[in-house]
Amino acid sequence: MAIVLNQNQAIALDQLLEQVDTQGLEYHIKSNQNKPVPLIRGIGSLGNAGQSEISFLSNAKFFSLLPETKAAAVILPQKAVDHLPAEMPFDMVVCENPYLMYARIAQWFDQFRLDAIPKQIHPSAIVSPDAIIEEGVSIGALAIIESNAKIGAGSIIGPSCVVGRNTTIGKNSILYANVTLYHDVTIGSHCILHSGAVIGADGFGFAPDSTRETGGWCKISQLGRVILGDYVEIGACTTIDRGAIEDTIIGNDVKLDNQIMIGHNVRVGDHTAMAACVGVAGSTKICSRCTIAGAGMVSGHLTIADDVHISGGSAVTSDIHEPGRYTGVFPIATHSVWQKNAAVLQQLAQLRRRIQQLEKNKSN
Amino acid sequence: MAIVLNQNQAIALDQLLEQVDTQGLEYHIKSNQNKPVPLIRGIGSLGNAGQSEISFLSNAKFFSLLPETKAAAVILPQKAVDHLPAEMPFDMVVCENPYLMYARIAQWFDQFRLDAIPKQIHPSAIVSPDAIIEEGVSIGALAIIESNAKIGAGSIIGPSCVVGRNTTIGKNSILYANVTLYHDVTIGSHCILHSGAVIGADGFGFAPDSTRETGGWCKISQLGRVILGDYVEIGACTTIDRGAIEDTIIGNDVKLDNQIMIGHNVRVGDHTAMAACVGVAGSTKICSRCTIAGAGMVSGHLTIADDVHISGGSAVTSDIHEPGRYTGVFPIATHSVWQKNAAVLQQLAQLRRRIQQLEKNKSN
Amino acid sequence: MAIVLNQNQAIALDQLLEQVDTQGLEYHIKSNQNKPVPLIRGIGSLGNAGQSEISFLSNAKFFSLLPETKAAAVILPQKAVDHLPAEMPFDMVVCENPYLMYARIAQWFDQFRLDAIPKQIHPSAIVSPDAIIEEGVSIGALAIIESNAKIGAGSIIGPSCVVGRNTTIGKNSILYANVTLYHDVTIGSHCILHSGAVIGADGFGFAPDSTRETGGWCKISQLGRVILGDYVEIGACTTIDRGAIEDTIIGNDVKLDNQIMIGHNVRVGDHTAMAACVGVAGSTKICSRCTIAGAGMVSGHLTIADDVHISGGSAVTSDIHEPGRYTGVFPIATHSVWQKNAAVLQQLAQLRRRIQQLEKNKSN
Repeated sequence: MAIVLNQNQAIALDQLLEQVDTQGLEYHIKSNQNKPVPLIRGIGSLGNAGQSEISFLSNAKFFSLLPETKAAAVILPQKAVDHLPAEMPFDMVVCENPYLMYARIAQWFDQFRLDAIPKQIHPSAIVSPDAIIEEGVSIGALAIIESNAKIGAGSIIGPSCVVGRNTTIGKNSILYANVTLYHDVTIGSHCILHSGAVIGADGFGFAPDSTRETGGWCKISQLGRVILGDYVEIGACTTIDRGAIEDTIIGNDVKLDNQIMIGHNVRVGDHTAMAACVGVAGSTKICSRCTIAGAGMVSGHLTIADDVHISGGSAVTSDIHEPGRYTGVFPIATHSVWQKNAAVLQQLAQLRRRIQQLEKNKSN
Repeated sequence: MAIVLNQNQAIALDQLLEQVDTQGLEYHIKSNQNKPVPLIRGIGSLGNAGQSEISFLSNAKFFSLLPETKAAAVILPQKAVDHLPAEMPFDMVVCENPYLMYARIAQWFDQFRLDAIPKQIHPSAIVSPDAIIEEGVSIGALAIIESNAKIGAGSIIGPSCVVGRNTTIGKNSILYANVTLYHDVTIGSHCILHSGAVIGADGFGFAPDSTRETGGWCKISQLGRVILGDYVEIGACTTIDRGAIEDTIIGNDVKLDNQIMIGHNVRVGDHTAMAACVGVAGSTKICSRCTIAGAGMVSGHLTIADDVHISGGSAVTSDIHEPGRYTGVFPIATHSVWQKNAAVLQQLAQLRRRIQQLEKNKSN
Repeated sequence: MAIVLNQNQAIALDQLLEQVDTQGLEYHIKSNQNKPVPLIRGIGSLGNAGQSEISFLSNAKFFSLLPETKAAAVILPQKAVDHLPAEMPFDMVVCENPYLMYARIAQWFDQFRLDAIPKQIHPSAIVSPDAIIEEGVSIGALAIIESNAKIGAGSIIGPSCVVGRNTTIGKNSILYANVTLYHDVTIGSHCILHSGAVIGADGFGFAPDSTRETGGWCKISQLGRVILGDYVEIGACTTIDRGAIEDTIIGNDVKLDNQIMIGHNVRVGDHTAMAACVGVAGSTKICSRCTIAGAGMVSGHLTIADDVHISGGSAVTSDIHEPGRYTGVFPIATHSVWQKNAAVLQQLAQLRRRIQQLEKNKSN
């Protein structure tokens, strides 16, 4: 359960829904006539919600939890209502997309926390005199805003962040504590960057250089930039490298989880989402509305079409032109079973030859 | 070799062992009568230890190094002593668990370093007036302790750390430099968190939202918390996300190496240890005394039983109910051998049919 | 395209090449006689370069772009010149190693940015009075230099970096913002460390300790150090752990990309390069001039010979004694194809037996 408001802040269900952003969502409240309008203080799961929480039914398999839930109100589709007795102990918010409605309500609750962050430049922050700080910006303690940087109206820069020279952040974006933006980076509006994220470090580029020593490397200075669109979220300790010559470009509404690595010159299309620990090597283009599940790996210089979904732990080593789901992961087994199968795996080509031989013998 | 003490600090072997925490360990010293009691300044491996270091024999395969070691003293089991001449150049600390004795001695040496950290609030730290700082706490330079946070007695907060609103740290815990704790996080006592760790960033949750644009995402604000038990160690750049509604919970004595990702709502049981680069996706429950070797990956919404051991690089994609060791990793080979076997791998289903056909023909 | 200089700074091609470090590179300029000497302001790819940029042909497959390029000058080998008309709209820098020449020119351009960083100790930095800061050092805002640390001449310490007690940095090295160096770390000269990198956190070492509780762990304090050679580059959020007793040692000219994990006591030989998301477990020795592609994993206590190349996503679980390329990655396929093949994979040992049976029947 997640109680966000204290008792004095509790809000009546109908007022809550009036304040929540319900754009594009149709809903109506089906009240329990025997009870007063419930006062809501937070959100809970069906199994754990208390009397001051709203819950939701986003998956039919949890229908059986409804009779037992202690939630004050439940968001659920008409189909579920039809299967319930006329009177339930909770009020119902009837909506065909309960999961989205829940997301919108969760945002409303979290806004209390964000509103509590003072819209001021903390006196300990180091802000370059020529940086442009628009209205309503919050800059946390010990944050550093370097020369010629620009922070758009309403954005929040967390404590100990570093915003490099010439770097631009749009409006209403949030950097949590300890985010590092290098020089010449562009962050859009309504973005969220989590702690430990590093945007704009050098791409990994070295030219073989044996003019001084066999096997030597000559660094290729990375002169490109990183450009993030609007509504991008970047997880904790995720790194996006600057381009070598051209820029690394992340589209609008791209969602990257924690510990992701995006190499130099990569382009990621709108609405693409990647779960944690994914790596995308340099110069690869991933188009729009793709998903890459956790620990997926994409080699460099590839093109991945729109609407491609990569399963967790799978390595993409060539272009993918068709939408669909792709997988390449060794199935786990007990260690002893794995040992036997892995041993045979290393003889597969030989095994095929033996089958060919058997087939040949048969046909003779 | 690791010389920790300078010459003036050198300590006699018997005094050292009196000061070390030997609870639960039986041992006795078998001295070399021809030599004075050795003075110890650090710990070395059998091969590299010098005359002022103590060493240990934790694996019988290193027995052959004993005659040559220059160590002043060696921790070893009775069985090894029985196979040695009566007089060796080193003193012997006879103990049936030399590895654990070594660990306890190493802690004793490292305490010198920890004791040298001043138990004060550095004047450059930014500590909220309503934060609770108990006795004997050290807060490093430029650390930030936000409103209503609480730091338990004897804890050390390294330089440039950020401790968010309402976050609580127990007693005698250590945060090295540049650790980030979000708001409403709970860290137990005797924990160690390494630099770059981020605890409490948002879990990765988005509801599909095409009310504005096809393929759009609506952020699900993460209202839960992260709770760490006692004696937990968190490696450098490891990230543990806060829960969506419920909390992410890490049990007592859990040990997480570097660059690990723990998703939202994950629960990890007591004494479970994970090596570097492991990822655990959201809502998975890993029970007690498990180990996951490096780069293991665990999908979301799974349950892993007690005493399960996952091999390095293996992907767990379904529940594991039985204790034991599990593996799923493609065996490495020269590239040309791999190419041949991988090509056949993609025809495995067809190969099986051909075998079935051969078997059918035979039986006809 | 990457325009680095403003119009007033534009430099004539011949002057540019005189200033660039061309040691070991032979080249000559073949001018277009009909045009004035081009003024160069940056570097572009053949496809995107503008009239004030220099470009390069590093791969014959891009030869067809030459007639269309708008670049002011192109670096290319004599062989390419031979296939072009006598007069091209661009000046030619004829050089047999255009890629290396490009790298050297890119460094020259990037030096403008580095030279703009003031060679001073920012007044907000916290520098221990007993730290040694050599000449021409730059220490950024809110950086922390702890007791007895030493910063070599010409090095740049970025904002918010933490340099621990007794840690030494050589000459002309660069730490970008938010790098963390623990105590007793040694960084060579001409190194580059990117933001979020953590050098010297504790190695992952615990002795099983059931003297207090079943399944308990006793921390093994890590008393060793980390030593980096010269010309080492460390990517963003890469972590290198300190040794348990001996040191973790990274050779000269080693290049590590982002999000790499190097375990305690690892040794990496000169000129070895690793792409992002690689993990190397404790006590492994990787020799010289090796490469490990992205997300490669190397188990602990192994030895990898010189000139070994590991493919992306491959797990090395035993020693490699011979140079060459090694691979072990499950080939990706559509999910349905993968499902069929993966199912058979788990019956491989049984399949082999069936083939053996067929062969046996045949020979009877």
